[in-house]
Amino acid sequence: MLPWKAGRIGDHIRDVQTPALVLERGHFERNMDRLMQSVGALRVRPHAKSHKCPEIARQQIARGAVGICCQKLSEAAVFAAEGIENILVTNQVVGAQKCQTAAQLAQRIQLGVLVDDRLQIEQLAHAMKQLPAPNPRCMDIYVEVEVGGARCGAMPGAVLALVTLIRHHPTLRFAGLHCYNGAAQHKRTPSERQSAVDQVAFIAEQTIGLLKRAGIEVPCITGGGTGTFAMDCARGVMTEVQPGSYIFMDADYRRNELWLKDPVFDQALFVLTSVISRSHEGFVVVDAGLKASSVDSGLPEVWRNPDLLYKQASDEHGVVQARSGQSPRLGATLKLIPGHCDPTVNLYDDLLVIDKDHVVDVWPIAARGACL
Amino acid sequence: MLPWKAGRIGDHIRDVQTPALVLERGHFERNMDRLMQSVGALRVRPHAKSHKCPEIARQQIARGAVGICCQKLSEAAVFAAEGIENILVTNQVVGAQKCQTAAQLAQRIQLGVLVDDRLQIEQLAHAMKQLPAPNPRCMDIYVEVEVGGARCGAMPGAVLALVTLIRHHPTLRFAGLHCYNGAAQHKRTPSERQSAVDQVAFIAEQTIGLLKRAGIEVPCITGGGTGTFAMDCARGVMTEVQPGSYIFMDADYRRNELWLKDPVFDQALFVLTSVISRSHEGFVVVDAGLKASSVDSGLPEVWRNPDLLYKQASDEHGVVQARSGQSPRLGATLKLIPGHCDPTVNLYDDLLVIDKDHVVDVWPIAARGACL
Repeated sequence: MLPWKAGRIGDHIRDVQTPALVLERGHFERNMDRLMQSVGALRVRPHAKSHKCPEIARQQIARGAVGICCQKLSEAAVFAAEGIENILVTNQVVGAQKCQTAAQLAQRIQLGVLVDDRLQIEQLAHAMKQLPAPNPRCMDIYVEVEVGGARCGAMPGAVLALVTLIRHHPTLRFAGLHCYNGAAQHKRTPSERQSAVDQVAFIAEQTIGLLKRAGIEVPCITGGGTGTFAMDCARGVMTEVQPGSYIFMDADYRRNELWLKDPVFDQALFVLTSVISRSHEGFVVVDAGLKASSVDSGLPEVWRNPDLLYKQASDEHGVVQARSGQSPRLGATLKLIPGHCDPTVNLYDDLLVIDKDHVVDVWPIAARGACL
Repeated sequence: MLPWKAGRIGDHIRDVQTPALVLERGHFERNMDRLMQSVGALRVRPHAKSHKCPEIARQQIARGAVGICCQKLSEAAVFAAEGIENILVTNQVVGAQKCQTAAQLAQRIQLGVLVDDRLQIEQLAHAMKQLPAPNPRCMDIYVEVEVGGARCGAMPGAVLALVTLIRHHPTLRFAGLHCYNGAAQHKRTPSERQSAVDQVAFIAEQTIGLLKRAGIEVPCITGGGTGTFAMDCARGVMTEVQPGSYIFMDADYRRNELWLKDPVFDQALFVLTSVISRSHEGFVVVDAGLKASSVDSGLPEVWRNPDLLYKQASDEHGVVQARSGQSPRLGATLKLIPGHCDPTVNLYDDLLVIDKDHVVDVWPIAARGACL
C-alpha cells in the first residue's frame, strides 16, 4: 500500500530516506556465527518474533538452527508459506478457529504449540480429529511450565496430568517442556540472571523427575533467550535454546552486564533518522518518533555520538539534545539504536541490508503485524 | 502478506479472532457529529495521523471538514492516491528527494507543508522549479511558530523573514501560521490547558501583528488538538483546528478533566483480546501485549469491568489481574481501551467496524507504517 520505499539495492546510505530500518550485514552475520559457536552441541531454535523475516530464518537454519520459534500462529503461517518447515509457536493456542488453523498447519509443517491447561489440549485434539485425512500428522505439544516468569505456564505439580492427557490423544505428541522466563533475560547483572537460570533449571529437573517416575521421558527441554542462553547451556538442563534478539541487539539488551561465557553481540539494527528542525538552542528534532522506534523499554540512543542524547519521543518526532550545544545541521542523518528491537521491527515492512555504506538487499518483514 | 484477517463482514463479534482492532460505529459517528457541532463556524481539518484510514477521512470530509492533516509526506501520498484532495502535512519536509516528491504531489492535490527554517523553503522552491510543467501549481507553505511545545517551530521574531522568503518564490504560497502545542493536549486540568491555549493565542496574535505591520495578511491560523480545540475555538485566534483522536479516544485522553465547553467523546476504539492462560490465582494472561496495544502513554484498560486491571504488557502477552480473585475463563474475550490510540492503530492493517455486535465493515488502515 505504501507509496515508496526508504531505499533500493545499490543506494548509498546517504540517499536512504528516513526514518528507515537498517541492518549492518557484517554485524548481523557475526552475531549469527557467535551464537552457533557458543552453544556447543545444544540445539538452537532462534525466535523469529524478533525479526518476522523469512530471509533471516533461512539464514539461521542454514547456519545450523533446527527450525524457528514463533510467538503467534499467524506468524507461523507466514513463515510456513515461505518454506520454513519446523516451527514451535511458543504460546498457547485457544479457541476452535485457531485450533483448526493450527491443526491444518500441522499437516504441512512440523508444528509445535504450548499448553498449560486441559482445555487447550482438548480443543487441539478436537481440531485434529476434524481433519479430513484418515491419518493426520501429529501436532507437537509442549507443556509450558511456570519457572518464575509469572505469566503463562502450568504449576509443576499439574504437569503430569497434562502430559497424560496429551498422550491419551493419538494425534498429539508430547514433545517436551517449555521452560522460559522472559523477565530473566533483562536482569542486568550476571548474578541476577544466574539465580533466575538456576530456578528455571531446578523446576525443570523436578518436573522431569516427576514425569520419569511415571515412566515418561521428556524429549526436549526448550527455553532461554538472548540474556540467559549461555548460562542455560552451561547449566545443562536445556536441550534447546531460543534466543531471538541476538541477531540485532538493542539499547535494552546492551545494558546487561555480560557473564564470562556470554558472547559479545554487535549492534546490527539501526533506525536511520534525519534532523528536520533546529529552531532551538541545544536541541534538534529528528523524524523518528515512537512510530519509528519503539519506546516500551526505553528511548533509542544515538550510535557512537556521546554528545547527542535522544531525550524525548512523540509519535513522529524525536528531540535530540546536543550536550556540547553544537547541534547537527538540518538534514543531517543519525543512526539510532532502538530501545527494544522486536516491537521496532514490527513497525516496518522492509529491512534495508547495508554493507560498506550501500544498500545490498531489501528483506520483507513478511510477518509484520501478524498478531493473531 | 498476512495469512488471514481477524474478522469479516457479517461475523458476530464473538467469532472475531483476537487480538483485533475494532471500532464501534455508533460511538464513532457520534464523535464526528459532536466535533462539528462544537466548532461553530471554524474550519476543521482533522488529523489523519490518528486513523491513517482513507474511509474515515472521506467521512470526516463528508461531514464538513475542509480536508485533512497528515504528519508524514508518505501518509499524504497514500491519502492522495485514495482521492483526498486537500492535505496539510503538519511537519517539516527536508531533503532533495522528499521535496521533489512534495512538489510532484502539490501538482495533484492542494498540498500544504510546514517550515521553520530558510533551508526548507529553499529546498522546496528548488524542487518546484525542477518540475517539468511551465506553470506549476503552487505549494501552500505554513510557517510553524514555536508556541510552547519546545519541539519544531520558528521563534516568533524569525517568522517575518521566513514569510518574506516564501513570498519571494512564485511557486510557493504563504498559506498561514501553524500554532500547535502537542503537550498541551494532554494536560489534565482545564486550567492547565487554558494557560497553554492562552500562550499559543498570545504568541499567534503577536506574530500576526508583526506580519500585519509589514503589510502581510495571514490567511489561516491552524492548530489545536482533541485536548484544546474547544478552548482554541473560544479563544478566537485560530481559524482552523486539527483534532485527530476525538473519533477514537483512548485511556490517556480519558484522563483529561473536561472543560465546560468540551464535548464528551465516547470511547469508540477497542482492542479485542482473549484469555489464553490462567494457571495462576488472581490473574490471567491475554493475547494482546505491546504489539497489539501501544504502551507509550500507559497501559490499556479493561472496558466496563472495574474488577479487571491490565497490569503488565510484554510483547505478545498482557497480564490481567482480577481484583476479586474471580478470573475470567480461558477463551473469554475482553475489550481493551488502548492507552494511546494513534500508535495502536499503526500496528494494524484493518479496522473492524462493529454495529450491534456484528462486523459491518472492514476498513483498510492504508497508511499504516507510512513513516517517511
